[in-house]
Amino acid sequence: MNVTAQLRDDAAEVIAQRFRDVRDATLGLTVNLSAEDCQVQSMPDASPAKWHLAHGSWFFETFLLTPLLPDYEPFDQAFAILFNSYYVGVGERFSRPHRGLLTRPSLDEVYAYRRHVDAAMLRLVDAVPPSKWRDLLELGLNHEQQHQELILMDVQHALSLNPLDPAYRQKLADPVLAAAPRTWTEIPGGLYEIGHNASGFAFDNEGPRHRVWLEPYAFADRLVTMGDYLQFIEAGGYRSPELWLSDGWATVEAEGWIAPLYWACEDGQWTRFSLEGRVPIDPNEALLHVSFYEADAYARWAGHRLPTEAEWEVAATLGGFQQIADCAWQWTASPYTAYPGFQPATGAVGEYNAKFMVNQFVLRGGSLATPQGHTRLTYRNFFPPAARWAFSGIRLARA
Amino acid sequence: MNVTAQLRDDAAEVIAQRFRDVRDATLGLTVNLSAEDCQVQSMPDASPAKWHLAHGSWFFETFLLTPLLPDYEPFDQAFAILFNSYYVGVGERFSRPHRGLLTRPSLDEVYAYRRHVDAAMLRLVDAVPPSKWRDLLELGLNHEQQHQELILMDVQHALSLNPLDPAYRQKLADPVLAAAPRTWTEIPGGLYEIGHNASGFAFDNEGPRHRVWLEPYAFADRLVTMGDYLQFIEAGGYRSPELWLSDGWATVEAEGWIAPLYWACEDGQWTRFSLEGRVPIDPNEALLHVSFYEADAYARWAGHRLPTEAEWEVAATLGGFQQIADCAWQWTASPYTAYPGFQPATGAVGEYNAKFMVNQFVLRGGSLATPQGHTRLTYRNFFPPAARWAFSGIRLARA
Amino acid sequence: MNVTAQLRDDAAEVIAQRFRDVRDATLGLTVNLSAEDCQVQSMPDASPAKWHLAHGSWFFETFLLTPLLPDYEPFDQAFAILFNSYYVGVGERFSRPHRGLLTRPSLDEVYAYRRHVDAAMLRLVDAVPPSKWRDLLELGLNHEQQHQELILMDVQHALSLNPLDPAYRQKLADPVLAAAPRTWTEIPGGLYEIGHNASGFAFDNEGPRHRVWLEPYAFADRLVTMGDYLQFIEAGGYRSPELWLSDGWATVEAEGWIAPLYWACEDGQWTRFSLEGRVPIDPNEALLHVSFYEADAYARWAGHRLPTEAEWEVAATLGGFQQIADCAWQWTASPYTAYPGFQPATGAVGEYNAKFMVNQFVLRGGSLATPQGHTRLTYRNFFPPAARWAFSGIRLARA
Amino acid sequence: MNVTAQLRDDAAEVIAQRFRDVRDATLGLTVNLSAEDCQVQSMPDASPAKWHLAHGSWFFETFLLTPLLPDYEPFDQAFAILFNSYYVGVGERFSRPHRGLLTRPSLDEVYAYRRHVDAAMLRLVDAVPPSKWRDLLELGLNHEQQHQELILMDVQHALSLNPLDPAYRQKLADPVLAAAPRTWTEIPGGLYEIGHNASGFAFDNEGPRHRVWLEPYAFADRLVTMGDYLQFIEAGGYRSPELWLSDGWATVEAEGWIAPLYWACEDGQWTRFSLEGRVPIDPNEALLHVSFYEADAYARWAGHRLPTEAEWEVAATLGGFQQIADCAWQWTASPYTAYPGFQPATGAVGEYNAKFMVNQFVLRGGSLATPQGHTRLTYRNFFPPAARWAFSGIRLARA
Repeated sequence: MNVTAQLRDDAAEVIAQRFRDVRDATLGLTVNLSAEDCQVQSMPDASPAKWHLAHGSWFFETFLLTPLLPDYEPFDQAFAILFNSYYVGVGERFSRPHRGLLTRPSLDEVYAYRRHVDAAMLRLVDAVPPSKWRDLLELGLNHEQQHQELILMDVQHALSLNPLDPAYRQKLADPVLAAAPRTWTEIPGGLYEIGHNASGFAFDNEGPRHRVWLEPYAFADRLVTMGDYLQFIEAGGYRSPELWLSDGWATVEAEGWIAPLYWACEDGQWTRFSLEGRVPIDPNEALLHVSFYEADAYARWAGHRLPTEAEWEVAATLGGFQQIADCAWQWTASPYTAYPGFQPATGAVGEYNAKFMVNQFVLRGGSLATPQGHTRLTYRNFFPPAARWAFSGIRLARA
Repeated sequence: MNVTAQLRDDAAEVIAQRFRDVRDATLGLTVNLSAEDCQVQSMPDASPAKWHLAHGSWFFETFLLTPLLPDYEPFDQAFAILFNSYYVGVGERFSRPHRGLLTRPSLDEVYAYRRHVDAAMLRLVDAVPPSKWRDLLELGLNHEQQHQELILMDVQHALSLNPLDPAYRQKLADPVLAAAPRTWTEIPGGLYEIGHNASGFAFDNEGPRHRVWLEPYAFADRLVTMGDYLQFIEAGGYRSPELWLSDGWATVEAEGWIAPLYWACEDGQWTRFSLEGRVPIDPNEALLHVSFYEADAYARWAGHRLPTEAEWEVAATLGGFQQIADCAWQWTASPYTAYPGFQPATGAVGEYNAKFMVNQFVLRGGSLATPQGHTRLTYRNFFPPAARWAFSGIRLARA
Repeated sequence: MNVTAQLRDDAAEVIAQRFRDVRDATLGLTVNLSAEDCQVQSMPDASPAKWHLAHGSWFFETFLLTPLLPDYEPFDQAFAILFNSYYVGVGERFSRPHRGLLTRPSLDEVYAYRRHVDAAMLRLVDAVPPSKWRDLLELGLNHEQQHQELILMDVQHALSLNPLDPAYRQKLADPVLAAAPRTWTEIPGGLYEIGHNASGFAFDNEGPRHRVWLEPYAFADRLVTMGDYLQFIEAGGYRSPELWLSDGWATVEAEGWIAPLYWACEDGQWTRFSLEGRVPIDPNEALLHVSFYEADAYARWAGHRLPTEAEWEVAATLGGFQQIADCAWQWTASPYTAYPGFQPATGAVGEYNAKFMVNQFVLRGGSLATPQGHTRLTYRNFFPPAARWAFSGIRLARA
Repeated sequence: MNVTAQLRDDAAEVIAQRFRDVRDATLGLTVNLSAEDCQVQSMPDASPAKWHLAHGSWFFETFLLTPLLPDYEPFDQAFAILFNSYYVGVGERFSRPHRGLLTRPSLDEVYAYRRHVDAAMLRLVDAVPPSKWRDLLELGLNHEQQHQELILMDVQHALSLNPLDPAYRQKLADPVLAAAPRTWTEIPGGLYEIGHNASGFAFDNEGPRHRVWLEPYAFADRLVTMGDYLQFIEAGGYRSPELWLSDGWATVEAEGWIAPLYWACEDGQWTRFSLEGRVPIDPNEALLHVSFYEADAYARWAGHRLPTEAEWEVAATLGGFQQIADCAWQWTASPYTAYPGFQPATGAVGEYNAKFMVNQFVLRGGSLATPQGHTRLTYRNFFPPAARWAFSGIRLARA
């Protein structure tokens, strides 16, 4: 589906409906959370759910309403600083590690802020020529969806620190079927094209589309399961420095890692903390919450390797693989850098992706927490190699 | 007033009323705070108001209800760990710096916990012989009152980090009158007695009463005012290492101190953040929120010194001084150590004071945030020398 | 020159002479250093010169003498641990950040250790079939040369912290000629091969040789000079967050960077600390001692970019560029990762390069401190993006 | 012996001889140390032996030669900053934690600096009226002696980090005799005087002499032995939080303490690193290298307590106790504060003691490493409560 084209042609009403749908989906995520749950920030990398709720509105207010809607009145002048994440081009920012201390505005005020912005956005869609806001609106909605997944990541992390093991939601899914044995698909070497072709929405970091030369490789049809990974643990993976990158091993030792994030072992039984509370490890489920270091060490132990992002994209485009975008983001062997010819967007939104192109690795696919329709085969997610609180797993490749 | 004696003789009803009064006074402090305000922990030394609310109940539950009230059912078994502050004698404790992440139990559940404990305590007062609980009940009520002052300290600190400068309460007091010039009272040297005489309630660290030899000294009739202290700032006090203890100067440099906590200067105008929000500096008010290091440096700059705690207690007992217990706790020159012959109470409550007798200094008096009737002339408050978020000020002495 | 082939065919005497030459070159670097100069470790990333002197011998002892020379007696059993750098495959290691505290063995004993190892190595070359040691000897000599450059880096860093600004050596070179204006060479896009072709010695990370697709680009004929970079400083480069990667700007702020490492400005005159002591900035000299973050920000400010390592290698192979390997290592835009099909060497020497393939960037070329004949056009040097104590500079590329 | 009086009356020759004796004693301590041994600084609290050698000379140069000896030429102007320890009153100081990186001046140059200063000092004694320098000379010699003990402390600490366990010196003493059972001497309560009486040399912090009231107490006739302390270890002392001050227990956990500094246990055999290298624990020897926290916890476990410094001085003055000043400094229960009426010396030497009167505890007596004649019964040594590298032990008291 070509979202931008659709926006281009649709009547204002259709656009407004899509706007409302995306924004309402965010509210749906916090409906069962108390004001206290939405307040806390469990680590500097995370943000309070309340902050996410406000920041999405800040984005529309800053990049669309203030510049484009005549007579727009900001909900509160102070929010311009409080809810700016990292855009130095639009002014000051409140200290990131202290977001969890902002008890004012209250959650109710943030909800009112959202309503204020939503109403104004609908006026803008109605009254201002689409050419002025089409691209920014699409960016804003995709940005909103990214924060939907971040809310789930951050809420899970905060709840996980509570000894009461509170569940964010009821168990949703049916039991997972037994995982099939891993099979491999051979992909021939050659000159391929990857990256977004500029038709329909994509983030700036997905382009330009460009050629890459690939050697022949094989791509695993399914993700690494929790059962697969348990074998690595039981084989002493976390006690074997020779399996790890040097910085990875230093992290294992400094952090005392013995299993993926959220896993615990009591009386020989492994469990993991999830959005549904603490649950037993199901060996058939796709592995979640490993770092790049763990993914890399596991692949080495298994005698294989991680795919590069180009290998991932080419294989996924060829098709026929399971769990591409619905279980776990998949760490690739590729550090996150600019594609040849990459130019960040003009203005402050150019800070969206470009300035983070160092010290991170690309993940591809999508996860159980990714909003429907948000991700693409060219989508480049990224996290530092030690990060584990994303819904991140492993797909293997081999020569 | 001899509180313990009173408890000894009073009918259960009178005792129950005093219990209710103290406990209700705690609730009065959080009545204007949202669940979010009660959730946050702004630094490791502080605790969330919700935690204070729960911990006071934990104290009664742990030291009175569980051992003494037949058939008492704890409100929630998990709270035994969650709300233990530092008593190793009664088991595990939840990590102190992470108290602010406990979004569950909710504030409403903590209020229900308080009601549960209060009801049980009234049953205990009614049904169990007073000899079994009299001393512990008195300790529990004094403990509750200490946390009342801590709630105000911690809430003020948390709100101070919000750029919106939110006020905890309306301005209460009338304008302060012009401070009188400082006068001195000469106290003759000699052998004095200090410490609590064991009639009526006191914390264990206030005794035993014992003799001390004092050289003659003079004691200032009033506290150092904000105007007095502004002169120190303007004279370059925060840029003059020769005025400071070595560790104090290291703190000034590491923390970038240029004024007391909560002070700010914009366009030449000094303001301070208070429970009433940001207010102008009134030069006649008693100084608040200085560390021992600042108190010591100020006294040196002024050509005087801080009193020892023995000097403070002897002078205060002789009487005739202003602002003894209603404005600001007064740093003394005395490190917090055991009195001769000191024995901590038996059992886990013996951890109440004794294990903190190192790396802290004694403050005497009481502050605007101290509950009525809580403090005594023998009362020994204590904080590390760099702490500033208490309601702490300066009284001078000289030879 | 094809070194391995040469070794293969040469008589033992020729090989022995090359061994002696490389080892003696190391001694030449410390001839003017006192035992004290060789003792100190100025930061965890650096090592004492004495440690470098010993570690080179440890390499030959561990990987050649002990396994291959019958009846070899280690100089001191304890050295196996003391002078192991990071090879987990051969046992324990002494704590890296504490290398500077090992006052025993003395420098004289370390020199004796070198003589002991050198004598044994010459026996080995004479008595053991070359097929058993040829590759390891070549690796050992290249390893020794890498530590020669590290000695210069680490000694310069240690001396730089001394307020006396002591010079390591007399000024060697003639004045630098005026730098020519920068010119660009256009390189056509297409499918190229890069990497080492396995004829002659190379480190494992230089191969396998493989194809890469490049878009057309232009390559600067000379390095960025100190004069070029002064313009960036004077234009406020270190005060402009929009020029920097996010992690780079965080480093600028945390470290207080205002210029390259070793630069200082007094009364408007810029100087830099060098191996020749403190010298004025010569605007015509090639820039040294910048981090990847600074190189990246400079390139952005200049409207250009850094070359990828493939672009660098292709251009350098095509030839015609100045300052390829004799002035400064050149930061590339390429994170340090494995080439397609890369396999680390078997055994503990497989730890030489592979486990560092994360959180570093590739530098290409060579520097004024690189031993003659050590570097190659396929050579991959690497450092973390914030490192500045290498002899690292900038060459620009553009689309 | 009244040292100052002696200086007052002695001929210049006698004074010169005493000066030479003290200065030469310092040299005697480093005679078996290499330039490398004298270079290193094993932790921020320690200093290199070379620095101590230079700093003693700096003291005489700064406080005597420069102000008092006409035409005195400093050995090197830069040393005024390099070798200033902490006197802000005389200008800048080189960063304390980086003292170990000053490879220049060399040890030989520092010895030359000493000779230069010594020669000038002898000219001063000869040519300048004693009234101008008598007190400062005495202070300088006592200062030199303090650094003699610090050299031994710091050298032992640096050598202890070397896995080779190098000995500083040969074993000197005969085997220790079996420790006698501990006996107690009862000291009656009453009004006592403590502190220096101003006749003869003393540091400013030892006065003024003043009255203190003591309750009756008993004083142990001998120090706690290593055998005594082993019982504490074996009884689980390092695993019992209830025995420790809160900050002490936090230190035990953070530092992983399981025994005194320098102790190790292999195959059930305890050894300790000493100036004579690693030696078996002799249960009859006086315990060394414990912190205040350990001394306090041991005393609590033993059912006794540490004496206050007043109790120590009164008992020691009454006499009859063993191991007063020749085995180990004895931690007291007294935080290091000013005596009543204390005034620091005028000028920069007033920084000698006064500014450290916080966050430290007083030790009394003297140790095996204290120079002959240096200590007194009024002498107040002091260290932070977690410090263990001094020659510090335990004497018990009880009510």
